[in-house]
Amino acid sequence: MAENHYQFNVVMTCSGCSNAINRVLTKLEPEVSKIDISLEDQTVDVTTSLPYETILEKISKTGKEVKSWKVL
Amino acid sequence: MAENHYQFNVVMTCSGCSNAINRVLTKLEPEVSKIDISLEDQTVDVTTSLPYETILEKISKTGKEVKSWKVL
Repeated sequence: MAENHYQFNVVMTCSGCSNAINRVLTKLEPEVSKIDISLEDQTVDVTTSLPYETILEKISKTGKEVKSWKVL
Repeated sequence: MAENHYQFNVVMTCSGCSNAINRVLTKLEPEVSKIDISLEDQTVDVTTSLPYETILEKISKTGKEVKSWKVL
């Protein structure tokens, strides 16, 4: 299935925050094939065959604020 | 409806972590009537008419590790 690469701008203030997001997205494997989180840049890069809405909902359920997202 | 008071022991490393948990639990109001989170004690106290499983699932979806829980 075709994969897309999305970048979400998420408010993360410590490695506990970024680890939490990594943990919930890892549960979407193998439909999520790559996760790259930068605490410094406040970005969550996801390569996936899933629609962005699914990823956005999953991140939102962590209670973290998603400021924006884009297709890369 | 009868309310219970549950205490969850959750790994939280910064105020961003505890705020995220507060945010998702607040969405369960009014079934959740009181939320008291201590970053120092690593505890999440919840007064609610909902079963503990519902609260546990909601906290788990934040990606935070729940170490234990008990009825107070």
